[in-house]
Amino acid sequence: MAKLWQKENQKTDAKIEQFTIGNDPLYDLKLAKYDVLGSLAHITMLEKVGILKSEELNPLLKELKNISKEIAQGNFEIENGIEDVHSQIEFLLTQRLGDLGKKIHAGRSRNDQVLVDLKLFMREEIKQIVGQIEQLFDLLISKSNAHQKDLLPGYTHLQVAMPSSFGLWFGAYAESLVEDIELFEAAYRLSNKNPLGSGAGYGTNFPLDRQLTTDLLGFEAPHVNVVNAQLSRGKTELFVVTAIAQLANTLGRLAMDVCLYNSQNFGFIELPSELTTGSSIMPHKKNPDVAELLRGKSNKMKALPSQLVLLSSNLPSGYHREFQLTKEVLMPAIEEIKDCLEITHYMISNIKIKPDLLADAKYDVIFSVEEVNKLVLSGVPFREAYQIVGNQIEKGEYSYKSRVLHHTHLGSIGNLGNEQIQQLKNIAWARFQFEKAEKAENALLS
Amino acid sequence: MAKLWQKENQKTDAKIEQFTIGNDPLYDLKLAKYDVLGSLAHITMLEKVGILKSEELNPLLKELKNISKEIAQGNFEIENGIEDVHSQIEFLLTQRLGDLGKKIHAGRSRNDQVLVDLKLFMREEIKQIVGQIEQLFDLLISKSNAHQKDLLPGYTHLQVAMPSSFGLWFGAYAESLVEDIELFEAAYRLSNKNPLGSGAGYGTNFPLDRQLTTDLLGFEAPHVNVVNAQLSRGKTELFVVTAIAQLANTLGRLAMDVCLYNSQNFGFIELPSELTTGSSIMPHKKNPDVAELLRGKSNKMKALPSQLVLLSSNLPSGYHREFQLTKEVLMPAIEEIKDCLEITHYMISNIKIKPDLLADAKYDVIFSVEEVNKLVLSGVPFREAYQIVGNQIEKGEYSYKSRVLHHTHLGSIGNLGNEQIQQLKNIAWARFQFEKAEKAENALLS
Amino acid sequence: MAKLWQKENQKTDAKIEQFTIGNDPLYDLKLAKYDVLGSLAHITMLEKVGILKSEELNPLLKELKNISKEIAQGNFEIENGIEDVHSQIEFLLTQRLGDLGKKIHAGRSRNDQVLVDLKLFMREEIKQIVGQIEQLFDLLISKSNAHQKDLLPGYTHLQVAMPSSFGLWFGAYAESLVEDIELFEAAYRLSNKNPLGSGAGYGTNFPLDRQLTTDLLGFEAPHVNVVNAQLSRGKTELFVVTAIAQLANTLGRLAMDVCLYNSQNFGFIELPSELTTGSSIMPHKKNPDVAELLRGKSNKMKALPSQLVLLSSNLPSGYHREFQLTKEVLMPAIEEIKDCLEITHYMISNIKIKPDLLADAKYDVIFSVEEVNKLVLSGVPFREAYQIVGNQIEKGEYSYKSRVLHHTHLGSIGNLGNEQIQQLKNIAWARFQFEKAEKAENALLS
Amino acid sequence: MAKLWQKENQKTDAKIEQFTIGNDPLYDLKLAKYDVLGSLAHITMLEKVGILKSEELNPLLKELKNISKEIAQGNFEIENGIEDVHSQIEFLLTQRLGDLGKKIHAGRSRNDQVLVDLKLFMREEIKQIVGQIEQLFDLLISKSNAHQKDLLPGYTHLQVAMPSSFGLWFGAYAESLVEDIELFEAAYRLSNKNPLGSGAGYGTNFPLDRQLTTDLLGFEAPHVNVVNAQLSRGKTELFVVTAIAQLANTLGRLAMDVCLYNSQNFGFIELPSELTTGSSIMPHKKNPDVAELLRGKSNKMKALPSQLVLLSSNLPSGYHREFQLTKEVLMPAIEEIKDCLEITHYMISNIKIKPDLLADAKYDVIFSVEEVNKLVLSGVPFREAYQIVGNQIEKGEYSYKSRVLHHTHLGSIGNLGNEQIQQLKNIAWARFQFEKAEKAENALLS
Repeated sequence: MAKLWQKENQKTDAKIEQFTIGNDPLYDLKLAKYDVLGSLAHITMLEKVGILKSEELNPLLKELKNISKEIAQGNFEIENGIEDVHSQIEFLLTQRLGDLGKKIHAGRSRNDQVLVDLKLFMREEIKQIVGQIEQLFDLLISKSNAHQKDLLPGYTHLQVAMPSSFGLWFGAYAESLVEDIELFEAAYRLSNKNPLGSGAGYGTNFPLDRQLTTDLLGFEAPHVNVVNAQLSRGKTELFVVTAIAQLANTLGRLAMDVCLYNSQNFGFIELPSELTTGSSIMPHKKNPDVAELLRGKSNKMKALPSQLVLLSSNLPSGYHREFQLTKEVLMPAIEEIKDCLEITHYMISNIKIKPDLLADAKYDVIFSVEEVNKLVLSGVPFREAYQIVGNQIEKGEYSYKSRVLHHTHLGSIGNLGNEQIQQLKNIAWARFQFEKAEKAENALLS
Repeated sequence: MAKLWQKENQKTDAKIEQFTIGNDPLYDLKLAKYDVLGSLAHITMLEKVGILKSEELNPLLKELKNISKEIAQGNFEIENGIEDVHSQIEFLLTQRLGDLGKKIHAGRSRNDQVLVDLKLFMREEIKQIVGQIEQLFDLLISKSNAHQKDLLPGYTHLQVAMPSSFGLWFGAYAESLVEDIELFEAAYRLSNKNPLGSGAGYGTNFPLDRQLTTDLLGFEAPHVNVVNAQLSRGKTELFVVTAIAQLANTLGRLAMDVCLYNSQNFGFIELPSELTTGSSIMPHKKNPDVAELLRGKSNKMKALPSQLVLLSSNLPSGYHREFQLTKEVLMPAIEEIKDCLEITHYMISNIKIKPDLLADAKYDVIFSVEEVNKLVLSGVPFREAYQIVGNQIEKGEYSYKSRVLHHTHLGSIGNLGNEQIQQLKNIAWARFQFEKAEKAENALLS
Repeated sequence: MAKLWQKENQKTDAKIEQFTIGNDPLYDLKLAKYDVLGSLAHITMLEKVGILKSEELNPLLKELKNISKEIAQGNFEIENGIEDVHSQIEFLLTQRLGDLGKKIHAGRSRNDQVLVDLKLFMREEIKQIVGQIEQLFDLLISKSNAHQKDLLPGYTHLQVAMPSSFGLWFGAYAESLVEDIELFEAAYRLSNKNPLGSGAGYGTNFPLDRQLTTDLLGFEAPHVNVVNAQLSRGKTELFVVTAIAQLANTLGRLAMDVCLYNSQNFGFIELPSELTTGSSIMPHKKNPDVAELLRGKSNKMKALPSQLVLLSSNLPSGYHREFQLTKEVLMPAIEEIKDCLEITHYMISNIKIKPDLLADAKYDVIFSVEEVNKLVLSGVPFREAYQIVGNQIEKGEYSYKSRVLHHTHLGSIGNLGNEQIQQLKNIAWARFQFEKAEKAENALLS
Repeated sequence: MAKLWQKENQKTDAKIEQFTIGNDPLYDLKLAKYDVLGSLAHITMLEKVGILKSEELNPLLKELKNISKEIAQGNFEIENGIEDVHSQIEFLLTQRLGDLGKKIHAGRSRNDQVLVDLKLFMREEIKQIVGQIEQLFDLLISKSNAHQKDLLPGYTHLQVAMPSSFGLWFGAYAESLVEDIELFEAAYRLSNKNPLGSGAGYGTNFPLDRQLTTDLLGFEAPHVNVVNAQLSRGKTELFVVTAIAQLANTLGRLAMDVCLYNSQNFGFIELPSELTTGSSIMPHKKNPDVAELLRGKSNKMKALPSQLVLLSSNLPSGYHREFQLTKEVLMPAIEEIKDCLEITHYMISNIKIKPDLLADAKYDVIFSVEEVNKLVLSGVPFREAYQIVGNQIEKGEYSYKSRVLHHTHLGSIGNLGNEQIQQLKNIAWARFQFEKAEKAENALLS
């Protein structure tokens, strides 16, 4: 079986083939499911606008649904010599239905076909990632509530600063995740636009009904302008990896805290043995490898946007072959962030908090602000109170008197505000409207 | 006048001073307006919760409003020896109102003070950028409508591919801008959270009413968790420059098109002499320097996120001094993107379209897809039609017959869909609710 | 078989195992050869300093050489349950020689063992890459010589500027490669330092002779300071990918030229059909996919340094587990640049030059500088000559008179200077002294 | 005074002017000195090849040397309305010598003029940076020698691992600097090539003697191929900022160590009050702001290569206007790294080491490897010795016996190898041959 575009006397070469195809078949498998969905919508529309006959549509629909089942069951592969997933599916259709199979590409280019597959793929993957974020969020909130009263020294400049708590620490990362969701929402919106009908980026003279395929696939709207639909290649992937990179940023900072808090010099937490490893020469070691790898993988993912940005910089508008390479960046990134979310969940679930941390004398100074504030509440202007306590400390005359904390305002040790954070999260989540896409996809396949 | 934190016997050193302060005073001036707003809200709240007396509040409010006017009139500066904008304003208050001025810092740290200033600053700047994007959008749509019938060769792989039009080209960038807005929305949301009351990142024992300052400043919600409020330092700036970088990506691609289309080898457009320069040795040259600089500045801005990401990588939670450096990245970036938007607007306004581009014989092949599609519409399966025309071209037997185009589907040459794009834009814009912030700020100052 | 560091009651978990090990075994296979070399040198030294007995050394050397042959023949694998390549080799030795095998790790940590493996690996890979660059250099020089007289329009600002030639064009990239070699030299120097004996980064109380292992392995010098040897982890890899990224930069610019010159609007070159592909909907297309993918892969590789920089940013000195992840960046990068060099060689070999390009009237202006210079040589000050010709062109009075070019200075159309470039290349190459490493490795294995 | 390239009826526009010129005049001032040097060499050569008459040469040389003195004395400025430094100098010559001044641009384009200025500038700046690195190196070595016996806990995975020392720690960064020099050498080599004569990137028909200008300016060799000379624009700057970024990487890691070691939880060092600041609300704080800013500035500089890479990605060969923007990245980067080197020197000079750190019981385990090694030296195979001590620790039966360390091998606590490091440094430095450039420049100006 030759390539879609292969004409009569074209030669190929193994070395070139390897260079141009690379790992594409591997990545393409992930698109198979979405390629069928796109084709189901496309041919349904072709029939509506008169390019396919009614009697042609049904066998095609039926066979595509069969292929969809084979994909779901793991019984689908890209055969040797077949160029890509799109050719494989068209090949199967032609094998099973004869010339009829050759009709489904009318009004479509491989460009908008790949685009729609990728958009559907990203839409689904974002949904899954956001689902995992939700689980991690819930865990962090529950840990925060459980550890509200477990105090922790708070640092600024890596210097002992003021009292903090594990309630605050866990809750902070929960709220941080809600913010990270915003970038996934932007990515979802761009993924949720229908490029079908944009052809190779310049449309077609077939009387396509692009709103119909938009509705059938549950997209929010068409990618209206066909040139812009093509401009979204690489850009949509960039939006997704930008969101992943920001999420990684948050996970990485959390992992750094864990590594530091686990150091004997801090000693704030303990990690179970599953999360540590030993040393080949130091028998006393329990290294937090999992947290370190989480930190490292997160940091590495922060370079993802740079990779995609470089891929498309200074390319004039219109498709260029290297857009095919975005899959090599996007797809492993999605796997890696999902792994990292899973491992973070595991790590946070199993972390052990050490009690009574503030009893250590080196944290006495942490309460100096309380002293200043007491003076202020008794009427001394803030700047003077600050000078009084500061000079006492300087001269070694400062004596810590009481360690009772009365932090009552929203978001503080005594009033974590986790309900408000939960509410912010609910609002952010609701904006996705994942159910719309799900419903449409199910309808197409049923 | 010493530093806020300066105790008795502290030495400083000019070299160190220069290293630590750098260009801060310059950047700080941009925050002056917002520092006053933050203080107005803060002291109004302090009085409500009983930390300031009623008779103390009014003179402070009045004097802060005076300072606000001085800032607006350009009569405000950070005096020699004063550390930063926050100290300068507190210094003015103390100069004018005596000890009363020293009371406004109660319940606040410089950390949450800088944070709130930056959030208010970014909120305003995003509004301005989004306003400029809107103007550029409107221009592109009007250009698209005006040039709907001006055809252009469309390229894929930099190879002549299919007919396109200036209508499509202008419109594509208009729709692209609507997508870029999504990232500004994410940045706006994160900028629109109130960090006031988070202190140095661990709250305070003052009974602050954080919801009240949130309402007074027109924020969407509090940055609830105080540790997370501090984690948002650097992150909010990163969201903003990420949005700027993506917008730059779009402007850069547009500029690359302009440079290419302006080359004699394409010759699709002409630039007025204001937008070109000559050569020091080639008397025939008219170089598109403005478009090239637009492209270059845009590309350079695409590295902005990398700068901020590197600044905060692997820093444990809690404030670190280098967060101060985010201003050096953020503030020039905002100026640069605003300049680029203005220049893009100017360039697009003045660009001249060359007529009848497709008359050139080298574009004949561009109509081959039309031929294939005609065969399809006459009943030939797509793959066969493709082979027929392909072999004709290969053998030199292909003769272009008609150049009439019937592209009728949404987003194509004959049906640009600019109304739908306009609608998508309106929906995206409405989500910002800029008026809420504006109203609150005006109320505070009046 | 358990892990080297596994003590009695340690649990593991499949999910964690997958997260921590990842693709390491795959990458580790590439290190097997070098692990044996390192061990050969290490135990030879251990015997010299009295830690191994003479009668212990010989069977270990013999068995390690056997393993080396098995690796070369492809008969080596990391068995299921064995943690890494180092454990596998130690395991084989213990299986074959009993307790003797357990003695080779004395005076060594996995840290310096991995480091020495990686250094030896990078040293060899740099040699191979530099060898491929040499082949490409030779090809470009020979193409430059062959096409000295084939003129080409030269562009500045993408505007037709002055006469150029394929001789200049090919030669330019040849000379550019010589410059790129400088970064490989820096990377080679850092790879060519011996970390053995640095242990886990803090040395050991064994009386190791580090100069001996340095000599045995043919390293230029020891990584003297043991803490610095560990600081070189990640840094050495960064030097290598920095060199790769710069080489990719050159290949990418070359590929961009090829894509542009191949566009119908330039039409300067032709690519053979093996290097092009068709379109799924446009039967006339011959797309330069190979050049585009070369461009794209090159651009993607330019983000490699960012990945490694992010991995180690703000990590305090001392080993951290994520340094293990550098292999995931380094090893595929090496494969990819080698592929790209091979394909570039293939592409340049097969490129066809179009003749008489400057005959086209649109290139007439290209000779205007010649006119200016003629006036100058006849005594007119340069600035006046420039004004005269410039005003002629402006008024449409400029008539191109002669197209004879007399460019005689070094590096110009008429005097390419390829011998000088060749000489610069020879000097750069000689600095590597690859033979020293080769000789030492052969001696160890014989 | 108009622009060099300005012909009769050209309009300009303030907004455009600002956008295109930007901060160029500021950066251009730094090039003035080098522009004169380039012109001195150029006209000397013009006379040799007969384009200038002998009687024309001398007044030009004399006046250029006058201008050089004015620059050195700070009496040079780019006048309002003059486009750039090159025009200003030519303008002064014309003002003072009449038409003679207009003759110096023959055989030169602004492109190779800017290139040669930049190369000379970078050559000098590299020399200065390398000089500062040398000073820091010397300081670190002397600190290392002074603190050889001051022990420090060594960490891996941020876990207490093995004994280290301040001797090792200071020495490690000294050796690290020697490695960083390699990239400056690569940058120096590329800066040390003569682009003069390459014109606008396509040479000229003047019979220039490019070897002569190469010798006069003390360049190592000509940038032979004229197209490649132009390809080196942006690339040379990239080499320089790549070297700066790597140096920043080393300074950043050092700064992170300082911040961590200064934390109360480590408490290994003390910083003098000049290097710390207080808090606006916590009177007990002494924050290591200087080290933090050093860390932050270093991290920010690590993004420099990304900026330049993005500037030139996918630009076809030939000059493009945005190459002008490289100055905006390069010049502040050079200033910043020089500041950072100075501050690092200051910080290291003033750091105070805390004594007897290993007396703390939490560091007892640090000596476990010594125990293992003792068993090994008494004949127990390494793996068994490791198990014995490991199980003792696990069961709480491990008792630390002796803390005497006998680390004698090269690069270890007891044998720092600073002389070898010094030797490596001397070899690296000697390769630059800075004196050659210096001598040539002095000869030109005398």
